[in-house]
Amino acid sequence: MNRIISSQSGRSAVRIDDEFWNRFIELVRGTVIPYQWEALNDSIPEAEPSYAIRNFRIAAGMEEGAFGGMVFQDSDVAKWLEAVGFSLAQHPDAELERTADGVIELIAMAQHEDGYLNTYFTIKAPGERWTNLYEAHELYCAGHMMEAAVAYYYATGKSKLLDVMRKFADHIASVFGPEPDQLRGYDGHQEIELALVKLYEATGEERYMELARFFIDERGAEPNFLVEETKRRDGRSIWTDRKLEPPTLLQLAYNQAHRPVREQDTAVGHAVRAVYMYTAMADLARVTEDRELRDACRRLWNNMTRKQMYITGGIGSTHHGEAFSFDYDLPNDTVYAETCASIGLIFFARRMLLLEAKSEYADVMERALYNNVIGSMSQDGKHYFYVNPLEVWPEASERNPGRHHVKATRQKWFGCSCCPPNVARLLSSLNDYVYTSSAEANTIYAHLFIGGEARFTLAAGEVALQQQSLLPWESDTRFTFTAVPESVFTMALRIPSWCGGSAALRLNGVPMDYETRNGYAIVSRTWSQGDCLEWAPELRAQLTAAHPSIRADAGKAAIERGPLVFCLEETDNGQPLASLSIARDAELQVRFDAELLGGTVVIEADGYADDAAAWQEDAPPYRPMAQQPASRAVRLRAVPYYLWGNRETGEMTVWLRTQ
Amino acid sequence: MNRIISSQSGRSAVRIDDEFWNRFIELVRGTVIPYQWEALNDSIPEAEPSYAIRNFRIAAGMEEGAFGGMVFQDSDVAKWLEAVGFSLAQHPDAELERTADGVIELIAMAQHEDGYLNTYFTIKAPGERWTNLYEAHELYCAGHMMEAAVAYYYATGKSKLLDVMRKFADHIASVFGPEPDQLRGYDGHQEIELALVKLYEATGEERYMELARFFIDERGAEPNFLVEETKRRDGRSIWTDRKLEPPTLLQLAYNQAHRPVREQDTAVGHAVRAVYMYTAMADLARVTEDRELRDACRRLWNNMTRKQMYITGGIGSTHHGEAFSFDYDLPNDTVYAETCASIGLIFFARRMLLLEAKSEYADVMERALYNNVIGSMSQDGKHYFYVNPLEVWPEASERNPGRHHVKATRQKWFGCSCCPPNVARLLSSLNDYVYTSSAEANTIYAHLFIGGEARFTLAAGEVALQQQSLLPWESDTRFTFTAVPESVFTMALRIPSWCGGSAALRLNGVPMDYETRNGYAIVSRTWSQGDCLEWAPELRAQLTAAHPSIRADAGKAAIERGPLVFCLEETDNGQPLASLSIARDAELQVRFDAELLGGTVVIEADGYADDAAAWQEDAPPYRPMAQQPASRAVRLRAVPYYLWGNRETGEMTVWLRTQ
Repeated sequence: MNRIISSQSGRSAVRIDDEFWNRFIELVRGTVIPYQWEALNDSIPEAEPSYAIRNFRIAAGMEEGAFGGMVFQDSDVAKWLEAVGFSLAQHPDAELERTADGVIELIAMAQHEDGYLNTYFTIKAPGERWTNLYEAHELYCAGHMMEAAVAYYYATGKSKLLDVMRKFADHIASVFGPEPDQLRGYDGHQEIELALVKLYEATGEERYMELARFFIDERGAEPNFLVEETKRRDGRSIWTDRKLEPPTLLQLAYNQAHRPVREQDTAVGHAVRAVYMYTAMADLARVTEDRELRDACRRLWNNMTRKQMYITGGIGSTHHGEAFSFDYDLPNDTVYAETCASIGLIFFARRMLLLEAKSEYADVMERALYNNVIGSMSQDGKHYFYVNPLEVWPEASERNPGRHHVKATRQKWFGCSCCPPNVARLLSSLNDYVYTSSAEANTIYAHLFIGGEARFTLAAGEVALQQQSLLPWESDTRFTFTAVPESVFTMALRIPSWCGGSAALRLNGVPMDYETRNGYAIVSRTWSQGDCLEWAPELRAQLTAAHPSIRADAGKAAIERGPLVFCLEETDNGQPLASLSIARDAELQVRFDAELLGGTVVIEADGYADDAAAWQEDAPPYRPMAQQPASRAVRLRAVPYYLWGNRETGEMTVWLRTQ
Repeated sequence: MNRIISSQSGRSAVRIDDEFWNRFIELVRGTVIPYQWEALNDSIPEAEPSYAIRNFRIAAGMEEGAFGGMVFQDSDVAKWLEAVGFSLAQHPDAELERTADGVIELIAMAQHEDGYLNTYFTIKAPGERWTNLYEAHELYCAGHMMEAAVAYYYATGKSKLLDVMRKFADHIASVFGPEPDQLRGYDGHQEIELALVKLYEATGEERYMELARFFIDERGAEPNFLVEETKRRDGRSIWTDRKLEPPTLLQLAYNQAHRPVREQDTAVGHAVRAVYMYTAMADLARVTEDRELRDACRRLWNNMTRKQMYITGGIGSTHHGEAFSFDYDLPNDTVYAETCASIGLIFFARRMLLLEAKSEYADVMERALYNNVIGSMSQDGKHYFYVNPLEVWPEASERNPGRHHVKATRQKWFGCSCCPPNVARLLSSLNDYVYTSSAEANTIYAHLFIGGEARFTLAAGEVALQQQSLLPWESDTRFTFTAVPESVFTMALRIPSWCGGSAALRLNGVPMDYETRNGYAIVSRTWSQGDCLEWAPELRAQLTAAHPSIRADAGKAAIERGPLVFCLEETDNGQPLASLSIARDAELQVRFDAELLGGTVVIEADGYADDAAAWQEDAPPYRPMAQQPASRAVRLRAVPYYLWGNRETGEMTVWLRTQ
């Protein structure tokens, strides 16, 4: 196994400049980050106050008042700062940096002498630090602030927040550990584990990595910390006045604390907690070359992505606990598929790529990115889905209580705290997801086809290249080498699953064969400056079938083209969409509509509609099939899933009945 | 509109003797009633105590102790007594009658001087009578006891319980009414309204009918009683320590109290409450010849049975509030379709038949009876479904919290109080559902084809007849007249919707034409003793389609034969059942299997199965349709829905994909 150095292990060396993605990144920079800043400062008139900045001012002694917001409110400030860090790395902005520096001052002032930092406990429950890890998100908030500190340090070179968080991490390391006077515990919501690995990579301090490993290895060990802690607290809860019984095994599975992490092989419980934890596990497996942990990651990856993932890259199919349910249980209508969970899946995929470059990880990463994640955001960047359904019947969302959680329209984003900032920090750090490289193996892996510039330091020397991509509309991608060393290095181009193995390669205009390794086209040679690799995986519209065990998709097809899943909307196809069907061998016609939804590919096909006109108004609802007229011919029209819900409210479906 | 006198308006004149139904009725008599008696007396070792009889002993001053069970625990005693009454009417049993007489003694002793009777308020909250109609089921319990009193009086001629309940009704009539010193209120759970009509019909006392009408007409009037009452009670609740806000309009819809009853046109809210209320409305429309109320009944009937009813006769599609959701929202997997709701639908259908003899009402009555209702009970009579699903995936019932309410196996009946006694009282009074007759119009309507003897008093004179039926296995039904008057009367035979209008009639072996009116074959003549009418509606197995607006059934077919809906079980067809499909014109082969499930018709057909073998273990869950092999041929096997779940636990589905 090669050790692979992340492009993120140092200041970002990739800069995105891509027709498709520039708009998203600009939306985050120009709209989401400023808007969120207003929200954090309670300056949006129609919104519930956030209290997040005010909490820090109170904790810093600059203001009097009570704690406001959720117990994990600090994490909103952290996620904003992290997104700012990523954004500044790509797009310097002196004013934004000054604002961020001010917030960092405030955070530093809110830190206790001993390093402790959490405004909820500082303001509201000063005597209760570390007594309710199960519920209080104390280490979770710490983790997000560590991630912010690292991102801001990489972007600006300023270490103030990094120093604050190192001090806090040192404090945490004194509180938690295997010694008799230490807590053998971990947080109810995983997050600090992956953050500590980042802190380790930014500082080189191994003790942070060790602390992450401690948290991972303690989780699920006997006697169960979360059970014992609840007993010690006499069941006191921050969510209810009722005293809680210690969590059962089923309840512990919600926190992935039902059994030791290394022994887990099925994705269970709260999906976001799960993928944040798997991300840290993959990090640790890589950094410490821990094969047992790597094997656990592979098992969990396989279970999650092969048996519990929607075609859109959504995970966590039930809203009860925002959780995984079980293998192949992927209902399209009562779905959850939270935005944050897919973002966490992308984190995990990237860590798996760092651990071992297999195209399968990038395939899933791309699927989640191009569908579930960007589909969660409206075109104006101000409305978001938390739940990303594959089938919507607006009346059911309103009137069937079992579907209230499935919204037919994106919600104003200030009403909710977790998903929009997570989208912001992912999109503003998207440059980190395009490549990985292995210095020792002299190999650059191109995982995503997103245009921009990139620089790599290999054993062979420095490489600089420029990628131009027309995805998701056309697949022709061009890599031009602007700086190359004198000796051999390898360019590994992902053969995306969607091309069905058909991908043409040209070097300087001349077609060339290539060797394939783990799903990548391998080109090893001595390169010349100006060399140009043209990579054209076949981009065809196709009908996709689901595994027969996924009951919800039986007899149905999805339409895919390249990384994009398509869907049918009522506005294009009428309703009920359930009455539509398509032949299994239907010809799919692809065209680009420059006027529609800011310009998009549309896929059309001949299909059928069950004839509702043949049913008299107020007819009995059931009648002999023999009386049913043959369905009538219709023209079906599908748009990319990520664009749904940007026109009139109506039905939407990804899966379409086949004939 | 003819006034039609119910066969129930007097001691029962119909006695069932039918190969199919005898078994059910005997099960109720021999198993359910004795078992329930043990339960009411806390004598079932493994069961939670009921406390129901003990509560009466405490209220009667015969025992010390605290109230036990639910606030509506008295109704369990009432439902048991009512079933006993119905059973004694058909099958005298001196010991059972002695037991019932003893219970009635006890009830009489628990009655207060002023007529009040309710053990919860007597024992637990003596000062709080009539202060929480919204939650406390006080009039609901009274209603059930009135129904018991009437049934027991008809069965035995003994009026002790009837007198107790008349006295209680008189007390209620003094408390509730339009006068300033009276409560302008009604119960949160409708039931007393239909019971008061029964009390009126048994006693001839119009004030009971007037009181029923008062409750019906006050419901939903402004100012809303349930809102005002909650305010007067300062939000105190018997379900929670929290103070309740007055109910919103949406919450009032749960109790059908969101608008005046006469203005309602859509079935909303808790399904059992709804159909109990509609039953009383139809009664009152008939008794008082109230056309406005009749029109409301027709509207509600039409909405409910044409847009909110499952093919099994199940109603109330969501478990949230055990309620209706909205038109055409009939999910098969997250279904509720409570047993009691279908029983209430049968009550309502029978009242509509009394109001106007249209075969549509009987079609629905038969559908609910032969499918949802008898399907709720296991073959041993000791296990019951509350929720009657049309699609079951046992693992999902266990592991997807949104489907926990859908059980894959019937539950031991003592764990639950409402459905089993309701099944018992319906089946033991099934004789009341077979016919209605109109004395003035000299017409006997045969609604259900269930064998037995019946006597009718028409203006023309006395009629006695014997019905022999082979349903649901064969449709040939024979009516033999054993006593006839000298002048003309009419025999009206329902043309069931399932025969598609094809039904042959013979008189004494000679084919005869007939006139059709409102879905009945009309035969008016002067009859001779010994005349024999043979009625043979065509009984064919067929595939049934659902209205295209029912999204859940799109592209699917159900298999029906006569009154029976069929289903596929895993034990016969493997799993996943979702991978199976059938041609729209498949030939259905019918055979009787005497060994299977006590003897049943089985329907077989050629079908297709998506090939799961073609998917490698651990393969990615999505792949091009083009790689999907053609499905393989299989032989499908369907059994009657009412028999499902009596073999190994497994998947079940009513709706099958069509090709």
